[in-house]
Amino acid sequence: MENPLLTRYALTLEYVGTSYVGWQKQSHRDLVTIQGEVERAIFAFCGQHVQVQCAGRTDAGVHAWAQKAHVDLAELKRAMKPHEILKAINAHLRPQPISLIDCAVVANDFHARFDAKDKLYVYRILNRKSVPAIEWDRMWHIKKPLNVKAMQEATQYLIGQHDFSSFRDAECQAKNPVRTLDRLDVSMRAYDAYGGVEITIEAQAQSFLHHMVRNLTGTLVRVGEGKCEAVAVAEILAAKDRTKAGVTAPACGLYLSHIIYN
Amino acid sequence: MENPLLTRYALTLEYVGTSYVGWQKQSHRDLVTIQGEVERAIFAFCGQHVQVQCAGRTDAGVHAWAQKAHVDLAELKRAMKPHEILKAINAHLRPQPISLIDCAVVANDFHARFDAKDKLYVYRILNRKSVPAIEWDRMWHIKKPLNVKAMQEATQYLIGQHDFSSFRDAECQAKNPVRTLDRLDVSMRAYDAYGGVEITIEAQAQSFLHHMVRNLTGTLVRVGEGKCEAVAVAEILAAKDRTKAGVTAPACGLYLSHIIYN
Repeated sequence: MENPLLTRYALTLEYVGTSYVGWQKQSHRDLVTIQGEVERAIFAFCGQHVQVQCAGRTDAGVHAWAQKAHVDLAELKRAMKPHEILKAINAHLRPQPISLIDCAVVANDFHARFDAKDKLYVYRILNRKSVPAIEWDRMWHIKKPLNVKAMQEATQYLIGQHDFSSFRDAECQAKNPVRTLDRLDVSMRAYDAYGGVEITIEAQAQSFLHHMVRNLTGTLVRVGEGKCEAVAVAEILAAKDRTKAGVTAPACGLYLSHIIYN
Repeated sequence: MENPLLTRYALTLEYVGTSYVGWQKQSHRDLVTIQGEVERAIFAFCGQHVQVQCAGRTDAGVHAWAQKAHVDLAELKRAMKPHEILKAINAHLRPQPISLIDCAVVANDFHARFDAKDKLYVYRILNRKSVPAIEWDRMWHIKKPLNVKAMQEATQYLIGQHDFSSFRDAECQAKNPVRTLDRLDVSMRAYDAYGGVEITIEAQAQSFLHHMVRNLTGTLVRVGEGKCEAVAVAEILAAKDRTKAGVTAPACGLYLSHIIYN
């Protein structure tokens, strides 16, 4: 895979996932993906058919503040600095809600996914009576007040190394359901002056099972709603049974925040 | 105007201004306005043709976190609490990016505009190479790094009571160009981990001239770009000449933040 005639670039991408079927390119041409749009923009800029490898493939509707990816480019017709390449690719991404926010030359053996030490996902909930307007499609709207303290209490049963089968989508292709959750934090802040509250769930791990953050969120929300006790989450986890846990939280509230490298 | 058979409600509205020609209803039916949509939703809910009076009419493309308005409603077919009215109006506002975030019964002589002591507008600038993706159409994107310190220095010449003719749109209908700027603050914070910065301008006054906040912003940005000295803003103000000041900053970065009442 390492070709000395190619230069490897690390790309950092911010995007709104709403209108895409997800990161990963699909065989059907009508399915618009982030990866497909980024590769199209790179082709439009330099005429090279490339494959962009990302750190964490996001699902349909999921956003990213700083997705990481890498790509190999053959020699360009004229020498260009990374910031010029960034500008050119961004020009070809318009009017897509995808923005290349960093572009850097990296070693040819850098791998956006395999070198990633940890990934941080953030889930945003708007907890108030009225729907979001400014951040429509950027948060999960929950009307009934959630008990944030109970949600915080429940996280202690989830942090660490566990078999997360109860929080794993039926379509998950991972062979091993064991994952290590390094961090799971629930915090809140005032969102407006009328009692509206934003609740943020931060989940950090080296890797996640399919829909794991959204399933953890759905379960924490069930605790916040008072439909189960915080301690019941330990039983849900131990059951290794998806049907015991909460709903899959909607994609619109989930953000791939950033990728941590050594 | 005060009719004892009517109940007056104070409404607090959050909205995205992008797809509207502004707050104020227009005679031409094809021009979609915030006011028109709110009145339409109220009619759909209770069958009453009402006129909604707001505190500060926002221009096309300008957003609001907490616009204030009032409306008089005749007796409803069944008695409803304000939070039920809020819910019903919001249901009829879907799928518009307008959300009624508060609804309260007020005295029949309350007036959203005339009783307002002060209005706070916030202007948001994204200062980085790459365009915004997540907050596309929610900030003014400026690529070249701005000198925030110089912008902060320039504010001292603008705060207080002045003839703001240099910052007044040609179409402004106010008889008197004198306004008192109670507050004009420029602040900054990191927006991403790659050098991107958000610059926020907060402007507070009892009332503003047409386009005043956007013209002040354009002039502060000119200072931030190093195209004129901070102290030159005093001369621009003294000139009472719109052509001396900076450009009108785009509507997409402006938010009516909130209205202050006694």
